[in-house]
Amino acid sequence: MIVGVIGGGQLARMMALAGLPLGMEFAFLDPEPDACAGATGELMVGAYDDPSMLDALARKVDVITFDFENVPESSVRALAARVPSLSSARALGVSQDRLREKTLFREIGVPTAEFAPVDTIADLESAVADIGLPAVLKTRRLGYDGKGQVVLRSVDELASGWEAISGAPAILEAFVPFRREVSVIAVRGRDGETAFYPLSENTHRDGILRLAASRPGDPATDAARKLAARLLEELEYVGVLVLELFDTDSGLVANEFAPRVHNSGHWTIEGAQTSQFENHLRAVSGLPLGDTSPIGPAVMLNIVGEAPDTEAVLAVRGAHLHLYGKEPRPGRKIGHVTVRSTEGAGLEIAVQELLALSGVG
Amino acid sequence: MIVGVIGGGQLARMMALAGLPLGMEFAFLDPEPDACAGATGELMVGAYDDPSMLDALARKVDVITFDFENVPESSVRALAARVPSLSSARALGVSQDRLREKTLFREIGVPTAEFAPVDTIADLESAVADIGLPAVLKTRRLGYDGKGQVVLRSVDELASGWEAISGAPAILEAFVPFRREVSVIAVRGRDGETAFYPLSENTHRDGILRLAASRPGDPATDAARKLAARLLEELEYVGVLVLELFDTDSGLVANEFAPRVHNSGHWTIEGAQTSQFENHLRAVSGLPLGDTSPIGPAVMLNIVGEAPDTEAVLAVRGAHLHLYGKEPRPGRKIGHVTVRSTEGAGLEIAVQELLALSGVG
Repeated sequence: MIVGVIGGGQLARMMALAGLPLGMEFAFLDPEPDACAGATGELMVGAYDDPSMLDALARKVDVITFDFENVPESSVRALAARVPSLSSARALGVSQDRLREKTLFREIGVPTAEFAPVDTIADLESAVADIGLPAVLKTRRLGYDGKGQVVLRSVDELASGWEAISGAPAILEAFVPFRREVSVIAVRGRDGETAFYPLSENTHRDGILRLAASRPGDPATDAARKLAARLLEELEYVGVLVLELFDTDSGLVANEFAPRVHNSGHWTIEGAQTSQFENHLRAVSGLPLGDTSPIGPAVMLNIVGEAPDTEAVLAVRGAHLHLYGKEPRPGRKIGHVTVRSTEGAGLEIAVQELLALSGVG
Repeated sequence: MIVGVIGGGQLARMMALAGLPLGMEFAFLDPEPDACAGATGELMVGAYDDPSMLDALARKVDVITFDFENVPESSVRALAARVPSLSSARALGVSQDRLREKTLFREIGVPTAEFAPVDTIADLESAVADIGLPAVLKTRRLGYDGKGQVVLRSVDELASGWEAISGAPAILEAFVPFRREVSVIAVRGRDGETAFYPLSENTHRDGILRLAASRPGDPATDAARKLAARLLEELEYVGVLVLELFDTDSGLVANEFAPRVHNSGHWTIEGAQTSQFENHLRAVSGLPLGDTSPIGPAVMLNIVGEAPDTEAVLAVRGAHLHLYGKEPRPGRKIGHVTVRSTEGAGLEIAVQELLALSGVG
């Protein structure tokens, strides 16, 4: 089986590392000639919306999936007509647009922050009048890792906030005071079977995920899974989907979802019986889902901006290093380290040792 | 770091799958243009003893290792002079020749079967007179998976036995009545640090390994590790080395060793904190060794000759499939399946389910 992946970043690369042992081969479409997935399959260099490249990819592969959700929905629909196993065009489309995403959450009864669309400064003023402050102004499209959003704390900041996002089509969301962010890594097979990993508890800094810890037995697990299940069913989704939730005094509030494997699920490589990458591939290929149960607790720390000394990382007992083969650049995720342990104390010590290294966490 | 691997089979492929996340890249030298490691790095097609290919490989890489021990020792010594981290020429040379291997075992006090060199039919007769029957006649070189050897049970069989191995330089070994075969997966770093995995207990059929089970806490562990440690020290070996032992009524008896990662250690991918592949790469690259402790018991079943139905394998709870991308052929190892479990009962059931599939075990 040949799997086509739109996008050739680290998610595609880790997918291939999980899929090669299943007898799969990979082809990636990415505009960057040095896209890091190239080490694990054929790299086709071209734009995500170039019809001739999409056509060439469709002719080559048995199934298509994504390491990246910002692929034009029209391209995805054109592909879906040709590669029958592709089934996530709507999920991609919805996840690309915060307004559609929040609207869908509301329609299917997934709690989310109060929100209103903002297309003009007048819209912004009326949205603030309705929702109150503080609130978060976010572009509807292409925001990630804290980009394309600004927190508004007083009415004086409306004009500068509107300017900060360049007056792009936007959404105003009520600010959600939360105790922590968790995510549900969920997977649904072609036959509708679903499975869920233990919750991830996520820590961000400067808008970038730094640390995700698996939380087997977390008290919020059942409530979170119910919400994710509702989304999987509504979208008739196939593959791994990740729902990010705020845990608040009044329960779980959905922030956003990603129709793909996700950074907060990287700990599943060492910390679960089957990784999110393998399960995504099993799902989109119509294979039975793998066991999602945990192997002791695990903590994943991102490597951002600069590479730590490999020797120092590997000297930490239980550290599993994942470098993506990407050039370091400020704010760029270039790898991660996972620590898995059956002894809680050893895990905590290892995490502290890793956090002391520059670039880690 | 670029790692050069002489041989591009499944061991090289699994090495690359373990090394890519450590930030390594791979180049393989193999005479087969469709060598299966090619999916995970650059494949250089050429003979193992072609000086120009070895030269091209040496110029490209930072460290060289092997997925295959039958590389001419002269080629290895020539390479060793150029790539400083290579340190196993003697180990390869010894392991290629059963007479040198047994002689070394005897010299360093590692118990082994009685043996005698056989270069002529007259040698064979006198060896049988000394050692007795039954005994095993083996070619000194190039035997594997039960090839190049014949069991002699009566003096009538000497001539036909000698013919069966084509009169090649040989060794006669006393037949060892054993209860089981175990192997020690051992690793030694450049700094002399050593580490050992739990024992593997190995089951063969038709001379081919079919099943290897990890045996954490096995009573033979300490004795087996002591023997392996003696070998590692004597050879000043760097990397993973596997010592195969017969467990007999009078203790452990060494059969042979492999100066490389080994089929009986494939269960370490899922069953140990760090796989044999990662630890071999850490060792030859001068990085700290990873934790070799087990994660619950694990059983590995080889896939030989024909590929089982992927869906049926993956439907077995806890089954981890590893296909090598090789064409099925009778007697050819084309993949393996590992089951890891924290519950003994679940493990046993999964193994039985897998053994029921054609091609498995």
